[in-house]
Amino acid sequence: MSFSLLHKDKTSKARAGVLKTARGDVRTPCFMPVGTQGTVKTLSNDELVSCGTELLMANAYHLYLRPGGKILKKAGGLHKFMSWKGPMMTDSGGYQVFSLAVLRKVKKEGVEFRSHIDGSTHFLTPEKVIEFQGLLGSDIMMPLDECLHYPVVKNQVEDSLKTTYHWALKSQAAGCRSQVKEKQQLFGIVQGSTYKDLRKRAVEEIASIGFDGYAIGGIAVGEPRELIHEIAEYTADLLPENKPRYLMGMGMPLDMVEAIAEGIDFFDCVVPTRNGRNGQAFTTEGELQLRNAPFKEDFRPIDENCGCSTCRTHTRAYIRHLFNTEEILGLRLVSLHNIYFYVKLIQIAREAILENRFSKFREEFKEKFKKRIGGK
Amino acid sequence: MSFSLLHKDKTSKARAGVLKTARGDVRTPCFMPVGTQGTVKTLSNDELVSCGTELLMANAYHLYLRPGGKILKKAGGLHKFMSWKGPMMTDSGGYQVFSLAVLRKVKKEGVEFRSHIDGSTHFLTPEKVIEFQGLLGSDIMMPLDECLHYPVVKNQVEDSLKTTYHWALKSQAAGCRSQVKEKQQLFGIVQGSTYKDLRKRAVEEIASIGFDGYAIGGIAVGEPRELIHEIAEYTADLLPENKPRYLMGMGMPLDMVEAIAEGIDFFDCVVPTRNGRNGQAFTTEGELQLRNAPFKEDFRPIDENCGCSTCRTHTRAYIRHLFNTEEILGLRLVSLHNIYFYVKLIQIAREAILENRFSKFREEFKEKFKKRIGGK
Repeated sequence: MSFSLLHKDKTSKARAGVLKTARGDVRTPCFMPVGTQGTVKTLSNDELVSCGTELLMANAYHLYLRPGGKILKKAGGLHKFMSWKGPMMTDSGGYQVFSLAVLRKVKKEGVEFRSHIDGSTHFLTPEKVIEFQGLLGSDIMMPLDECLHYPVVKNQVEDSLKTTYHWALKSQAAGCRSQVKEKQQLFGIVQGSTYKDLRKRAVEEIASIGFDGYAIGGIAVGEPRELIHEIAEYTADLLPENKPRYLMGMGMPLDMVEAIAEGIDFFDCVVPTRNGRNGQAFTTEGELQLRNAPFKEDFRPIDENCGCSTCRTHTRAYIRHLFNTEEILGLRLVSLHNIYFYVKLIQIAREAILENRFSKFREEFKEKFKKRIGGK
Repeated sequence: MSFSLLHKDKTSKARAGVLKTARGDVRTPCFMPVGTQGTVKTLSNDELVSCGTELLMANAYHLYLRPGGKILKKAGGLHKFMSWKGPMMTDSGGYQVFSLAVLRKVKKEGVEFRSHIDGSTHFLTPEKVIEFQGLLGSDIMMPLDECLHYPVVKNQVEDSLKTTYHWALKSQAAGCRSQVKEKQQLFGIVQGSTYKDLRKRAVEEIASIGFDGYAIGGIAVGEPRELIHEIAEYTADLLPENKPRYLMGMGMPLDMVEAIAEGIDFFDCVVPTRNGRNGQAFTTEGELQLRNAPFKEDFRPIDENCGCSTCRTHTRAYIRHLFNTEEILGLRLVSLHNIYFYVKLIQIAREAILENRFSKFREEFKEKFKKRIGGK
C-alpha cells in the first residue's frame, strides 16, 4: 500500500495521510504547484522547496508538444530535464486536449486533435499517454479521459463515461505491461458532470479497475460554486476510503478548505502563480491587489505573519513599484509568496486534522479570509 | 583616502585597488550590475550576492520619476526600499535626460524635460540631483552633466563642457553643504566627445574641483570601437592616478578587458541582463544564442567551467525549452549566469593584475572569446 490514511478528523470528513512515492513521501492533504511546461511559472526549484513543496504537477499534453518525447527521453525523463528531485505527478493531457486543442475528434481508440501551438495533427491513445508518462518518469500518472464542459446534456455524459471507462481499462493494462509501473503510480479519473447517478456509476466502474488513487475530474468547469462542492462531496463519499483522492484543478483557498472537509487529499491550481503575476497576493486575512494605490507607501510585508522569503525581505510598497514599472522581480516575489501561502495553508489544515479541530480551523479561516482587503 | 591603489600590473596600465564605502569595501576593477529602477532585471538580491556582486548601480532619473522622492524618503532611502545591504552607486540621470526624456531644454541653471513615461514637466538642477541622491543614500553619487551623442561638432562640445563644468562646481558645493556627504562619495564626470584637446581641458577642469573619483562619460555613444578605446585610454592617462576611474556604460566582455588595460577601474552595463533576457549567454569561449536549434538536445550546462547556480543546475536544452515556451525562468537563468560571468571575469582580471600577468590574460581571453559559438 503506497497510501496510508493516518487519521480521520473527528469533526469533519477531513483526512490526513502519507503517500509513499519512489522519490519520497508526500503528506496529505497536499497542494501541488503547477509546472505545466516543466517549470512553475517564474519560480526556481530551490524556491519551490523553500515554500515546502512536496509534490509538483506537470502536464503531459504541453510536454508532448514541447519539447516533445525525443528530447525528454534523451534528457533521461522530466525530473532530469527540469532538475526536480522530488515527487511529481503528471496530468494526462485529457483536459488540455478538450480545452486547448482545436478540431479534436474523439474515436474509440483515442482522440485526434490539432496542436494549439502550430496546428500539427496528433492522435493520442490511452496507451500512448501512459507510454509518454512512462518516458517522463512521473511518480504519479493520470490516464487519458474525456472532460466535458458545463452544462452538458445527460446522454452526452453517458456516452462520454463509456469512452473514459474504456480508456481507463486500456490505461491500466498499459501501465501493468510497462516496466516502469512498479515505480509509477496510476490514478483513475472519475467523470460524470453534475449528474449524481452518473458520478456513482463512474466511481463504480473506475474503482472496479483498482487504481492507486482516484481523481475527481470535470469539476469547476463552469458550475455554480455550491454545485461544485455538492458533487465533490457526493463523489468523494463513494470513493474507496483507503486510497488518495485528488480534486482536479480547483484551488481558491476557501474552496480547498471546503474540499478538505469533504474528504479530498490532493489539490493543484494555477491560481497562486497566475494571480501572482497579476499582483494578487493571498494572506490569511484575504486577498490583496498590490497594484493598487493604497500600497504605494505601505512599508509592511504582504503578510506580517508569513515566513516566506518575499515577506522576510520586501515591502508592499516595493512590490507595487515593481509592478508599476513592469519589473519581472515583482511577478517572482508575489508568485513565491502565493505558493508558500497555499502549501502552508494545506499543511496547517493537516495539523488541524491530526488534532481533531479541523471544523474550528475551517470556521476561523472562513471568518477571517476576505475577498479583497487593503485596496478598492 | 577612500580609494587605495594596491597594485599596478607590470605588463600593462591595469590597476588593482580597493574603494572603501560606508557599506563595505569594493575591490577594483569592478563590474556593477545595473538595477535601473531599483531592481536588476529578473534577479533577486540574494542571487546578485551569489554572483559575487560588490557594488550595484541604480539610476536617479528613473527613481526620481518612479516611485519618486516622497516614497523613497518615507522608505528610508533606496537601500531600505529595495533591501540591498551592500554598496550602491547612483547615476545622476544626466544620460537619461539626454537619451530618454523628450523636449529637453538646457539652461544655465539646469535642464528642463518631459518625462518619457507620462509627459510631465520637470526641471533638474545640479543641486536637486545631489539632494535627490542624498535622499537615496547612495554610497557613490554622480553629478548632473550634459552627455552628447556622436558625432557632434566641436564648438557644440565646447559649449557643453562649460555647462558640465559649471554644474560640476555646483554639485560639489551642494555635496559639501549636505550632511550626508561624509558618507556619500561624489565622482566627477569628464566629457569632451572624441576631441582629445577638449577631453584634456575637461580633465583639468573637473580634476581641479577635486572629486572622490572620476567617470569618463560620453563614450560608446556611437563611435567606432577603435576610437572608443583611443579616447578612453587618452582620458584615463590624464586622470589622477590615486583616484578611481569609471568608464560609463561600456561593457562588452572584450571591451572591458581592453579598458582595464587602459587603466579603468569601474564598469556598468545592461548587456548581461538585457542580452540574457534575449537568450544570449556569455562564456569564456564566446557568446551562445540559446534560442538556436543546435541547443535542443544539448544537455551540457551553458559553461562547463562555470560555478553559477544556473550552470550547476540546468542544461542548455532545458533553457532553450524555457525560451521556446516563453517561460520567465529562462530569462532569470541566463541573466544570472551572465551577471556571474561578468563579475567573475573582472575578478579574474584583478587576480591577473595582482600577479603581473594581465597582458597574458588579456591575450588569452581575446584568443578564446568568439563572437558566436554553438549556433548559427
